[in-house]
Amino acid sequence: MKQYASGRHFLQIPGPTNVPDRVLRAIDRPTIDHRSAEFAALGHDVLEGMKTVFRTSQPVVIYPASGTGAWEAALVNTLSPGDRVLMAETGQFATLWKKLAEKLGLEVVFLSGDWRHPADAAQIEAHLAEDKAHTIKAVCVVHNETSTGVTSDIAGIRKAIDRAGHPALFLVDTISSLASIDYRHDEWGVDVTVGGSQKGLMLPPGLSFNAISEKALSASGGAKLPRAYWSWQDMLSANSGGFFPYTPATNLLYGLREALHMLQEEGLDKVFERHARHASATRSAVRAWGLEILCQQPQAYSNSLTAVVLPDGHNADDLRNIILERFDMSLGTGLGKLAGKVFRIGHLGHFNDLMLAGTLSGVEMGLSLASIPHNKGGIMAALAFLSGVPEARTINTVALQ
Amino acid sequence: MKQYASGRHFLQIPGPTNVPDRVLRAIDRPTIDHRSAEFAALGHDVLEGMKTVFRTSQPVVIYPASGTGAWEAALVNTLSPGDRVLMAETGQFATLWKKLAEKLGLEVVFLSGDWRHPADAAQIEAHLAEDKAHTIKAVCVVHNETSTGVTSDIAGIRKAIDRAGHPALFLVDTISSLASIDYRHDEWGVDVTVGGSQKGLMLPPGLSFNAISEKALSASGGAKLPRAYWSWQDMLSANSGGFFPYTPATNLLYGLREALHMLQEEGLDKVFERHARHASATRSAVRAWGLEILCQQPQAYSNSLTAVVLPDGHNADDLRNIILERFDMSLGTGLGKLAGKVFRIGHLGHFNDLMLAGTLSGVEMGLSLASIPHNKGGIMAALAFLSGVPEARTINTVALQ
Amino acid sequence: MKQYASGRHFLQIPGPTNVPDRVLRAIDRPTIDHRSAEFAALGHDVLEGMKTVFRTSQPVVIYPASGTGAWEAALVNTLSPGDRVLMAETGQFATLWKKLAEKLGLEVVFLSGDWRHPADAAQIEAHLAEDKAHTIKAVCVVHNETSTGVTSDIAGIRKAIDRAGHPALFLVDTISSLASIDYRHDEWGVDVTVGGSQKGLMLPPGLSFNAISEKALSASGGAKLPRAYWSWQDMLSANSGGFFPYTPATNLLYGLREALHMLQEEGLDKVFERHARHASATRSAVRAWGLEILCQQPQAYSNSLTAVVLPDGHNADDLRNIILERFDMSLGTGLGKLAGKVFRIGHLGHFNDLMLAGTLSGVEMGLSLASIPHNKGGIMAALAFLSGVPEARTINTVALQ
Amino acid sequence: MKQYASGRHFLQIPGPTNVPDRVLRAIDRPTIDHRSAEFAALGHDVLEGMKTVFRTSQPVVIYPASGTGAWEAALVNTLSPGDRVLMAETGQFATLWKKLAEKLGLEVVFLSGDWRHPADAAQIEAHLAEDKAHTIKAVCVVHNETSTGVTSDIAGIRKAIDRAGHPALFLVDTISSLASIDYRHDEWGVDVTVGGSQKGLMLPPGLSFNAISEKALSASGGAKLPRAYWSWQDMLSANSGGFFPYTPATNLLYGLREALHMLQEEGLDKVFERHARHASATRSAVRAWGLEILCQQPQAYSNSLTAVVLPDGHNADDLRNIILERFDMSLGTGLGKLAGKVFRIGHLGHFNDLMLAGTLSGVEMGLSLASIPHNKGGIMAALAFLSGVPEARTINTVALQ
Repeated sequence: MKQYASGRHFLQIPGPTNVPDRVLRAIDRPTIDHRSAEFAALGHDVLEGMKTVFRTSQPVVIYPASGTGAWEAALVNTLSPGDRVLMAETGQFATLWKKLAEKLGLEVVFLSGDWRHPADAAQIEAHLAEDKAHTIKAVCVVHNETSTGVTSDIAGIRKAIDRAGHPALFLVDTISSLASIDYRHDEWGVDVTVGGSQKGLMLPPGLSFNAISEKALSASGGAKLPRAYWSWQDMLSANSGGFFPYTPATNLLYGLREALHMLQEEGLDKVFERHARHASATRSAVRAWGLEILCQQPQAYSNSLTAVVLPDGHNADDLRNIILERFDMSLGTGLGKLAGKVFRIGHLGHFNDLMLAGTLSGVEMGLSLASIPHNKGGIMAALAFLSGVPEARTINTVALQ
Repeated sequence: MKQYASGRHFLQIPGPTNVPDRVLRAIDRPTIDHRSAEFAALGHDVLEGMKTVFRTSQPVVIYPASGTGAWEAALVNTLSPGDRVLMAETGQFATLWKKLAEKLGLEVVFLSGDWRHPADAAQIEAHLAEDKAHTIKAVCVVHNETSTGVTSDIAGIRKAIDRAGHPALFLVDTISSLASIDYRHDEWGVDVTVGGSQKGLMLPPGLSFNAISEKALSASGGAKLPRAYWSWQDMLSANSGGFFPYTPATNLLYGLREALHMLQEEGLDKVFERHARHASATRSAVRAWGLEILCQQPQAYSNSLTAVVLPDGHNADDLRNIILERFDMSLGTGLGKLAGKVFRIGHLGHFNDLMLAGTLSGVEMGLSLASIPHNKGGIMAALAFLSGVPEARTINTVALQ
Repeated sequence: MKQYASGRHFLQIPGPTNVPDRVLRAIDRPTIDHRSAEFAALGHDVLEGMKTVFRTSQPVVIYPASGTGAWEAALVNTLSPGDRVLMAETGQFATLWKKLAEKLGLEVVFLSGDWRHPADAAQIEAHLAEDKAHTIKAVCVVHNETSTGVTSDIAGIRKAIDRAGHPALFLVDTISSLASIDYRHDEWGVDVTVGGSQKGLMLPPGLSFNAISEKALSASGGAKLPRAYWSWQDMLSANSGGFFPYTPATNLLYGLREALHMLQEEGLDKVFERHARHASATRSAVRAWGLEILCQQPQAYSNSLTAVVLPDGHNADDLRNIILERFDMSLGTGLGKLAGKVFRIGHLGHFNDLMLAGTLSGVEMGLSLASIPHNKGGIMAALAFLSGVPEARTINTVALQ
Repeated sequence: MKQYASGRHFLQIPGPTNVPDRVLRAIDRPTIDHRSAEFAALGHDVLEGMKTVFRTSQPVVIYPASGTGAWEAALVNTLSPGDRVLMAETGQFATLWKKLAEKLGLEVVFLSGDWRHPADAAQIEAHLAEDKAHTIKAVCVVHNETSTGVTSDIAGIRKAIDRAGHPALFLVDTISSLASIDYRHDEWGVDVTVGGSQKGLMLPPGLSFNAISEKALSASGGAKLPRAYWSWQDMLSANSGGFFPYTPATNLLYGLREALHMLQEEGLDKVFERHARHASATRSAVRAWGLEILCQQPQAYSNSLTAVVLPDGHNADDLRNIILERFDMSLGTGLGKLAGKVFRIGHLGHFNDLMLAGTLSGVEMGLSLASIPHNKGGIMAALAFLSGVPEARTINTVALQ
């Protein structure tokens, strides 16, 4: 049993994110008959609404499943056993997607990366250009690497594929960017986009998505990987009437409809600006502390999370535990090879300036309490950014006590 | 937009069932960090709690998925492409499970049935006895056919398999019986039991389960069907710490914990008695109306739903629509070949005598309004059963005001 | 600790009534600053909305208080110590209002009644006609006596006062009729109408109302009873901006706004028809049982509740306890001199045909279990009324299974 | 309609306070029969629980009313028309209580104050000592002045009354101190303590309280102010069975039970320490900004709110509006003669370090945006206090941009 904690928990992992009361209350409604006209109206609303979020006019399907399920769906609907896929190693989630592909019997060409840079369009282009026989059937990229806070340039990779004149499908994971960072399924020529509910969509986990291009749909006709639960055909056929081929997660769909209303009320462009602003403020704080941002390419900085590197000899999980115990805030742990080396600040979803100020204050106090060498005043830098009123002169650099 | 309806909707389809306020309120809580100690406690609670519901001491896994996903999981974890499985055609869901198996590349021996009787243990025994080469790798049976209201004798089928001395795995679907009708995973020697959240467990849809025998787990080592999302190995490994290999549907797990508390407070045996009592009362009403119960074998009557056959020339969906419009009650439609011929009354989950009385009253009025030939007084028969006070010989005729 | 009860409790007392989920969810929102513009919008909405419910264009005030508080407010704002008021003894609530008036230092002329008839307009007229000196300052009548299920004719009493040419104020309690039974504050020339939240308005208890005529407002200028919390002046002055003179019960106001939306969606006239229909159906059942309706004047039957008289020698509370224990339904007890002699069935608020059928089924079974002499089939009579399909001459006798 | 605001509103007025989800969810439950055994258990729980909060073994009564109602109740139950009461002018709420007393027909001796100091025990003693005839029937003091953030020394005033040997009753308002600042009804010899739900008790507004000494109860026997709704006698008589003399605000009582559990889980002493800590941190920030705390006596600093004085020529409401619009935070306005001159920061109720950090960050940014002369770094001072890690040297004083 968790010790009593007064006040509201700060859930600042990069997802699941803070679920708004409006969404929770929407979910907290009696389940209805999933074969009723009332349900069909709900089904249509969310299926159409999701298209605006993916910026697509092509079909989107909704699975009662975690994001991992939607990864699997993207692969099994388009590929056949033994097919080669080209994947870019951007971090832990790219690595997990690779392992999943291998479990399904695919052969993965993994373009290695250092987890501090985005996927390399030129490298992808080069590989594709060499693949004269078109043995590579798909290129898989994570748009926003949740483990590192690095965002890859999907439009650029699309162009690279086109330059190589390669027919591979283009599959993109937007689990931690969708509804937080600008993304355009149609304009960028993506074939399957994978999304999840528990990040920018502000929902609890339990729903995931595939946005599907004409080309992907057509590829699914010849794809031989066995599939049933994930099969697009059954799904799309039932969806046309607002229904699902098996019992959908109705209450989460209530929440999705409410979240779509909220995104529409705020406006997607403002949502993206807000995330960009909070990300900039966070990086201001990190720089003021004198700490290192994991991402080494400024144009690839993620707007939904920031991974911060601790100085050698300091364990990020010790810091996270101190912050959790003292300030009731959850921060993201370092995943995979980053374990203990970085912590991640989620600044996405249902969030605002003062929640960010509380978050960065908690980090700043935690750094002191954990005796991590740093300059004080990261919070001051963030407030200066957020208010648009520059800090005068310099805040004194303060030595650690 | 649905027209305004005063009062509470009667959701009397055989699932999703009426979700209790306690469960909805439990779900309506902020999502937490799925890697925290607080989450691990939740994970342990629900994983252990589910064992009591399946009456097993062996592992249970929980998927963020519909029941269809758990069907798929049961197959892909234990079987290899081309494996033969023996399935009993008890109704629409058995048929759907068969189709799913075929999509996954399995070869199904489908023991045909008339949708009015349970799976035939003798027929299963005969088939297995003939299969000297043990080419049949699994026997798949639906415990309670949601499309027909017929319950098969799982213990009896276990004995039949044993009598045949056949090593096939025994896979059972309890989606609409779990926590409603007595079921014993261990005692009955079942290898994989498939369950879902939205029926007797009183939750919204979105979670499903596999209870896994030692033998099944061992079979999974050699099973060659590709799998990742459904893979037991990753799941069990993460579960040992109270965690999940990918983001779990945390808020539904809150609801599951509450539902498990409720089942424990009532006591599983009382839960089963209650369902048996409501099923008997429902059949009393159906008989009094002079209508036919679809299930033709009294010992196979389902305790969670009753499918009622309409007289020739009358469409069950017309009746259902009248009842929905006039009385705001959802009843189950006839599925597959039963479309239009039967309607199904769900009497499972969070339910009580007066909810049943309201339900049967709605059916009785609907029969009148739809001009379905019937005797009046089904509700009287049900009340006599429920109160334990037999109806007097004649009901006084009362003039209408 | 209450024993575990499966399914939904039937709250069939004549208030508090079953609160709809929509209202509960509206209440379940963070409290806001009661001095903010957002609050002012809420304040305006509910103050204006309540006028439509009282059918008035004059001011309505909302107290964070029970209905008893609104009784007190009606008196202390309009009267002075020692003032004489004429009250009609319609039942327990009329008696309690009289006691309250006496506690406040008023002199009550109490027109005695037998608790089975409405207030007698002729008797009121006679009293007023005799009061040449106009020592009577107010006439107080309960529109719908919650303790008896008798509705008085407010329009008729207004005419009686007018015929007597008497200047007394006319104060009316509509606590259990508002939003259930047709009521017209302006058209019927009522000076103060008293209402409460927990009946036809479908809210939890905690809010109460005064609708105030010009004449009443003017009388308040000279009224000498001390008042502060209940003072209309401060209230109206703050209300003009959408605010309140002290902290309002914000969350209940959220619920009120939602309830007003629901009433508007259904339409007040349909709301009244629905209540009339359920009341008729209930009386059909009572007559079929051969039991006596407490109200002895058919045109005064209440549409929001029905009080049923038990045969001599039978205790209504024993019956109520059996029904509560066996069927988890709360019925209203006999109040004051009716204790043990009657039980009351609430059929008001958020209610529908099948909830009523469940309710009457519970009563019918309870009558059997408590061995109260009665004819079976009250539920059949009610269903015949509700469906509009008359019962056949004879109900087929069906043997019990 | 309020513009869409992402993230959680910061409700930092000194009440209503941020209502915890646990409390909101408790309130969001179906209303039950207020005459049932289940209700009686609830009634007992909350009536007993409130005694621990008031630190009394004497009766506590609960009104379905705002705090203003409980003020009125304290007076009408103990006093007679024309009685003299001694009140200390600590601020706006003391002034409102005085006006209320006058409206009820009491004669108030109002010890004038400058709204920046606590009630003066010596002055009270002197007045009482001079009142040889004991014409003063009650001394009324506001424990924590919500309008000023000044806390009076109730134990000290008790001693002053005792030194004067005066029999006056001692009535204390703890609306904004109860469950936030140490308070002892019995030990400090208070006769009536007035409390409300929407501050330290973390509930929405709508409940208020009187804790009643033996002496006060005995005084009520002879008190002649008319009373009915507020009458202790009826209330205590019904309370003995766990019930109420009129319909209670059942759903708010659900919330109260949950809030009492939460206070018990945290422990009242820890609750008080937490409030003291947050108040100290807040004052650190105010001092660092170079702004003036309204309260001029350090031992009288309030732990539940801090009122901050703006430099001449600056309007506090302009600042508050900027903060509301830019950062979605509500702060308390200056009341009465302090209008425009001060703003108030509520730091009470369900609150924690990071919520405070967010709050103070919002104020700091607001000061910049509103061009209020101040030194930057208040938030740094607060973080130093909260973390226990002192700021090194000094944060540079920064001139306003």
